Amino acid sequence: MSQPLQPTPRTTLGRHPERGSHDRAVVERILDEALVCHVGFVADGVPYVIPASFGRDGDRILLHGSAQGRMMRALASGAPACVTVTLLDGLVLARSAFHHSVNYRSVVLLGTPVVITDREGKREALRVVVEHVVPGRWRDARPPTDAELDATTVVALPVDEASAKIRSGPPVELERDAHLPAWAGVLPLETVAGAPVPDAAAQATPVPEYLTAYARRR
Amino acid sequence: MSQPLQPTPRTTLGRHPERGSHDRAVVERILDEALVCHVGFVADGVPYVIPASFGRDGDRILLHGSAQGRMMRALASGAPACVTVTLLDGLVLARSAFHHSVNYRSVVLLGTPVVITDREGKREALRVVVEHVVPGRWRDARPPTDAELDATTVVALPVDEASAKIRSGPPVELERDAHLPAWAGVLPLETVAGAPVPDAAAQATPVPEYLTAYARRR
Repeated sequence: MSQPLQPTPRTTLGRHPERGSHDRAVVERILDEALVCHVGFVADGVPYVIPASFGRDGDRILLHGSAQGRMMRALASGAPACVTVTLLDGLVLARSAFHHSVNYRSVVLLGTPVVITDREGKREALRVVVEHVVPGRWRDARPPTDAELDATTVVALPVDEASAKIRSGPPVELERDAHLPAWAGVLPLETVAGAPVPDAAAQATPVPEYLTAYARRR
Repeated sequence: MSQPLQPTPRTTLGRHPERGSHDRAVVERILDEALVCHVGFVADGVPYVIPASFGRDGDRILLHGSAQGRMMRALASGAPACVTVTLLDGLVLARSAFHHSVNYRSVVLLGTPVVITDREGKREALRVVVEHVVPGRWRDARPPTDAELDATTVVALPVDEASAKIRSGPPVELERDAHLPAWAGVLPLETVAGAPVPDAAAQATPVPEYLTAYARRR
């Protein structure tokens, strides 16, 4: 059984606390399904939110990027960061405009990134990120060279000060609206993969099974 | 023809500037297709990133939320904010691990939110948000009451200091990797709607056409 995450004032939900969870397994499942995260950091007093790939290695998530980029320079500076992932599950249509909502599962993770400087640690981090996005891919790809690793900054953020928020199910609305004639319910949404499109040189290469059977929810 | 957005140092891309755009029409199209945005703000020196619904009304975007929530209190405080939307179009598999990438279209929008205080402005903003998420829905929904409007904070953020970033197409990699045997190309991704699920009281209500024909890209 996993250890629950310790709530802090920063990860305690003010709105709809019944939708919140500090269960580590719940948080990890949402992180593992998400393909991108949105990384928040402050530079010159301005908040920036940048989409990024990531991976999870046990109780930490790993982010990488160009050593020259604004995001990685900020994340490597020792300043606080926020990493948020959101899985959109459906649109919730109530009979009243006010009670329209969205079904989703999200994680908000706060912390101070730690830079991974050794090449072996960076190589392993890139493996985790590639395998997070396309499980099975790493063994088929040419591994990073030392020069490629040196051009990449990798940081780790502990999955420690984090909370999940989940809304699911039908609309919730006022009893006095129940008689209204409008259709109400949920329009489910899903991210699906299409047929793999080979590049010019891979036209005759068999498509690997990790692509033909690609699915996010595991 | 739309006016281009004026680039600023904050919206000028340091990495892959060839993927950037300050074309207002490009920025608006990405905003219009996105179902959720990620809102960044700073509270007590900590960056927060929170997913939110939104809508676009001409040259501004509109965000709403509970007047009591941390996000709306921060956005209404006159502090700078960042709103980012990301559309994920595909996973890009190169022959080298290092050149793996993601096809996406994103917008990063910076600015200081302006609070909309009058009820007519708030009601119109909620209409814009509902119509953004489900075009055609507003006419079927019971409009917000004054009490509902008073419990909601609405802010507008000008689409002014903003940039788009777009990656599309096959992997780009080193010539020396071209002989490697791995499959390479793109796994397309798409967000699709499933069959509408009526709530208990709507089982016999005809499903409106704006749901049966629901599609994001317009």
